[in-house]
Amino acid sequence: MSNTTQDPVHEPDFAHESAGHGYITDKSKYLNRLKRIEGQARGVHKMIEDDKYCIDILTQISALTSALQVVAVGLLDDHLKHCVLNAARAGGDEADIKIKEATDAIARLVRS
Amino acid sequence: MSNTTQDPVHEPDFAHESAGHGYITDKSKYLNRLKRIEGQARGVHKMIEDDKYCIDILTQISALTSALQVVAVGLLDDHLKHCVLNAARAGGDEADIKIKEATDAIARLVRS
Amino acid sequence: MSNTTQDPVHEPDFAHESAGHGYITDKSKYLNRLKRIEGQARGVHKMIEDDKYCIDILTQISALTSALQVVAVGLLDDHLKHCVLNAARAGGDEADIKIKEATDAIARLVRS
Amino acid sequence: MSNTTQDPVHEPDFAHESAGHGYITDKSKYLNRLKRIEGQARGVHKMIEDDKYCIDILTQISALTSALQVVAVGLLDDHLKHCVLNAARAGGDEADIKIKEATDAIARLVRS
Repeated sequence: MSNTTQDPVHEPDFAHESAGHGYITDKSKYLNRLKRIEGQARGVHKMIEDDKYCIDILTQISALTSALQVVAVGLLDDHLKHCVLNAARAGGDEADIKIKEATDAIARLVRS
Repeated sequence: MSNTTQDPVHEPDFAHESAGHGYITDKSKYLNRLKRIEGQARGVHKMIEDDKYCIDILTQISALTSALQVVAVGLLDDHLKHCVLNAARAGGDEADIKIKEATDAIARLVRS
Repeated sequence: MSNTTQDPVHEPDFAHESAGHGYITDKSKYLNRLKRIEGQARGVHKMIEDDKYCIDILTQISALTSALQVVAVGLLDDHLKHCVLNAARAGGDEADIKIKEATDAIARLVRS
Repeated sequence: MSNTTQDPVHEPDFAHESAGHGYITDKSKYLNRLKRIEGQARGVHKMIEDDKYCIDILTQISALTSALQVVAVGLLDDHLKHCVLNAARAGGDEADIKIKEATDAIARLVRS
């Protein structure tokens, strides 16, 4: 997977976006959510270590999965609002490529 | 949630199962998986922080969700094999309670 | 798939279950639900035929998927309550086989 | 739900798109898929009626759910490619509304 994230095509290559794609609305909200998700994962690890009741662990895993889905849907929304709309307004084939990527990502999410 | 995990019915109440329910087959396998899942969550946090491409972040979230589902299905399997079967063999209503809990957990997983 | 459903292992082999496995609690409830699901599928067909708004069609598909999941979780519950418990009480390896089948079905549902 | 599908905003209001939104690419492909889905729903009804083995019914339900997800992702793709892109190119707030609808639909699908 790491090779995907290092894909040069996706790398920021110009000044004003030096931080990267920069399309994420309210980044700190996402970072906080991910911190919480990490904490939940650590919590599940601890529950297994402590032989907590299986069903309680499953409840935590469902909560963790739901939290991840909220993040995923939020990121998709940002992608559509920024990458897709900007590409559409710029004209050319870029919007089609962005939509194809979005649809593939949606398919993976719906199935995962 | 915490009140559920402190439910006295679920608490270990004897000596060396003092660690808990002890029904989890191959605990170290689960602990390793959870360590990896924590690492994946940390990786998604880093990707957002670094403004990585949204679609690549979504790919990682799908992978993380799938990894959680593998853990969940494994724990359910252990629950059925140990808690439910033992309760069934012991007789009484305990097996019905365990199955009710399992079905509710499955419903949450299928929907989450 | 048809060969699976004709698997002789699963065939009813004694009188009082002549209708088949006969483990389904409240069969008419399931039959009504499936009738409704069929109607919903027909409704989606009609919406596409009539070029209804895509988002409204998606809303119907989500409702249809949820209705199917309710049926699936109900059937799993029946499977655990009847097939698995009976096998567990009868002793032998049959319960392990039934649980393996249930776990595989859960994994398919969680991922589907 | 019916009030949503009758939402006047979504109603076809002009001559030969009298059939409706008309944005669906390859409509006959969708209609065929829905016919097959209807047939699968009928098949599940018959399996329950005939007391087929629970696990085999669940396998069919998973297949049916997957088939519905393929249709849903395809419709979303069409929505993004047509409604969203056209709105984006036309300018104004319409694209934001279409994206909001799409994101809500994705959230329902991911959770259903």
